[in-house]
Amino acid sequence: MRVVVAVDSFKGSLTTTDAGAAVRAGVLAARPDADVVVLPVADGGEGTTDCLAAAWGTPLRRSVTTDALGRPTTATWALSADGARAVVEVAAASGLPAVADVPADPRGTSTLGTGRLLVEALDAGAEEVLLCLGGSATTDGGAGLLVALGGRLLDADGRDLPPGGGALTALDRVDLSALHPRARGARWRLACDVTNPLLGPRGAAAVYGPQKGAGPDDVAALDAGLARLAAALRGATGVDVADLPGAGAAGGAPAPLVAALGATLEPGAPLVLGEVGLPAALAGGADLVLTGEGSCDEQSVQGKVVDGVAAAVRAAPAAAGAPVVVLAGRVAVAPAVLAAAGVTAAFGLAPGPASLDELRADAAPLLADLAERVVRLVGRDAR
Amino acid sequence: MRVVVAVDSFKGSLTTTDAGAAVRAGVLAARPDADVVVLPVADGGEGTTDCLAAAWGTPLRRSVTTDALGRPTTATWALSADGARAVVEVAAASGLPAVADVPADPRGTSTLGTGRLLVEALDAGAEEVLLCLGGSATTDGGAGLLVALGGRLLDADGRDLPPGGGALTALDRVDLSALHPRARGARWRLACDVTNPLLGPRGAAAVYGPQKGAGPDDVAALDAGLARLAAALRGATGVDVADLPGAGAAGGAPAPLVAALGATLEPGAPLVLGEVGLPAALAGGADLVLTGEGSCDEQSVQGKVVDGVAAAVRAAPAAAGAPVVVLAGRVAVAPAVLAAAGVTAAFGLAPGPASLDELRADAAPLLADLAERVVRLVGRDAR
Repeated sequence: MRVVVAVDSFKGSLTTTDAGAAVRAGVLAARPDADVVVLPVADGGEGTTDCLAAAWGTPLRRSVTTDALGRPTTATWALSADGARAVVEVAAASGLPAVADVPADPRGTSTLGTGRLLVEALDAGAEEVLLCLGGSATTDGGAGLLVALGGRLLDADGRDLPPGGGALTALDRVDLSALHPRARGARWRLACDVTNPLLGPRGAAAVYGPQKGAGPDDVAALDAGLARLAAALRGATGVDVADLPGAGAAGGAPAPLVAALGATLEPGAPLVLGEVGLPAALAGGADLVLTGEGSCDEQSVQGKVVDGVAAAVRAAPAAAGAPVVVLAGRVAVAPAVLAAAGVTAAFGLAPGPASLDELRADAAPLLADLAERVVRLVGRDAR
Repeated sequence: MRVVVAVDSFKGSLTTTDAGAAVRAGVLAARPDADVVVLPVADGGEGTTDCLAAAWGTPLRRSVTTDALGRPTTATWALSADGARAVVEVAAASGLPAVADVPADPRGTSTLGTGRLLVEALDAGAEEVLLCLGGSATTDGGAGLLVALGGRLLDADGRDLPPGGGALTALDRVDLSALHPRARGARWRLACDVTNPLLGPRGAAAVYGPQKGAGPDDVAALDAGLARLAAALRGATGVDVADLPGAGAAGGAPAPLVAALGATLEPGAPLVLGEVGLPAALAGGADLVLTGEGSCDEQSVQGKVVDGVAAAVRAAPAAAGAPVVVLAGRVAVAPAVLAAAGVTAAFGLAPGPASLDELRADAAPLLADLAERVVRLVGRDAR
């Protein structure tokens, strides 16, 4: 019996690695002879760096950089063993929680700190950089990223702009002549699960600005600045990112990466699942595919790990017919909705009445136990 | 796909009929074309009357009788549609909760009220009477049953004893000459899940007396009375029930029924499962057998419904290989223990963090939902 395990982290209790280990133990308790392939997985959001470091078998890198307000901080990212691939989460250096200790400064926050991590990745040899959007405190249109990578944002007098989206209203032009020598040659992949454009009522400032502290005046100023950035990038590169779906993610961070460096925007879960080798694992066949996450709800089948796993199984002839079973802390979606997405069934960890704290505290043994029960049921006829 | 459903009541929330209906709905939600056979089940304890009335399709009978202290009460029992079979629970008339309003009188409590129900059953034409032991407030060695059925318990002066186990110390002999005319011709089946003998340190008085309010002196007096009863029954029938395993159930109630009427003691769950037709249903084949109960623990595979269902599946060649899945409010037993008893897997109702009250309030929809998920998983390959 071959079981492919691709379980997301359980927020607040288990990393994807811990969850995978628990499921492996449960599978083997039911079927000691099972061939169990465990892959760490993530959806391109929080935990993706941990996931890829685990998949690559490399330690997390911890770098000194700056937070969204320019204060010194450390942030983690990861590099593959051969140095060719890197993963960086925008939230690691430029995240919202790190600047929650002071009054919000929506016009001043910058992605410069994340940009410094990207430079470290290039310096380390990365030829492919995966940047996970989401969780940023910024609405600077990726201005900080561009500056860190050697770009210049200049006002009408040829002076460099200060950091932050608020300064972009004074932007006159972008100078890309001194970009990092390896920036253009690298492959830039942006994990992004939103379709918001850079500008306008569905744009980065209007939709995500308020959760970063922007009032109506801030939103108007930031949107105007992003419009000037789009125009300047178009002028420098010929690429228009104003209407690009997804360019509004992470405060517009994709804008310069797409325009100047040819970055691609990709849904996070399939990107990560491909990176960790799920398609290859499924090509080896599967009698059962176990996935899971803390909470399995309608969102789970709208681009999250569970959805990505089900799609990967559908796309793998060698795994045709393998049931896809979700193991979750909470199951809050109708069976028919899951079935329509290719998920055979979902089961909850709770063995009976239990509080969230109790489930979190016992998540690993409960997950192992649940996996064992599912394998006993599914695997009774398997070789 | 043929699914046989035999789910016990969920104490405090669902009767076996309610539970069966919920599971049927869930099965059909997953597989509208499924052939679903739902049987009400019980383990010979509380709820067995409800279960058999449901299986027989007859209404509950409600009779005026007396409680364990001789006070008027009403109690329910059931009769099959053809009148040939009856079920009575000792606890219905002679149960402990009904006399909890007054100080315990362990020497005075009597099974006379249950005996009156047995007489009603015989008068209604019953040729087979199933008496469910368990839950009684009595330690009268079934003296009340015997008296109701026309037997006499006499002291050395030929006077009838008053009710209660305490009076048995004055017992000299038993007179069976005026038994109900149909008592000896009926088949008496006693549902009993204990092996305690009538007398001694593992007997009815010593083991169960204390929970009925008996102190050490009471236990000694009751045990002595039961010994006199055994001797008197042996004298009248030649049958010695003193060492019979199970004769200590329900305060010794089996003693006169076994000695005078040839009653048999049988484990409750298999008895009821046979009565409701589980073996016949399984003989029709099964792709999946769903059972369940409020709490699935080690006891579940020690003579309860779950154990009985698994045993019935093992004994049914037409259902060979069908997974036996437990749906439970709480799963508190290791998968391997269940597997050793022939149970493929057990799953809990809780979809996430939830209190007992919440699970009870939503038990029916949660049970339907869980059944649906299991059928989607098991039934994906079924015809």
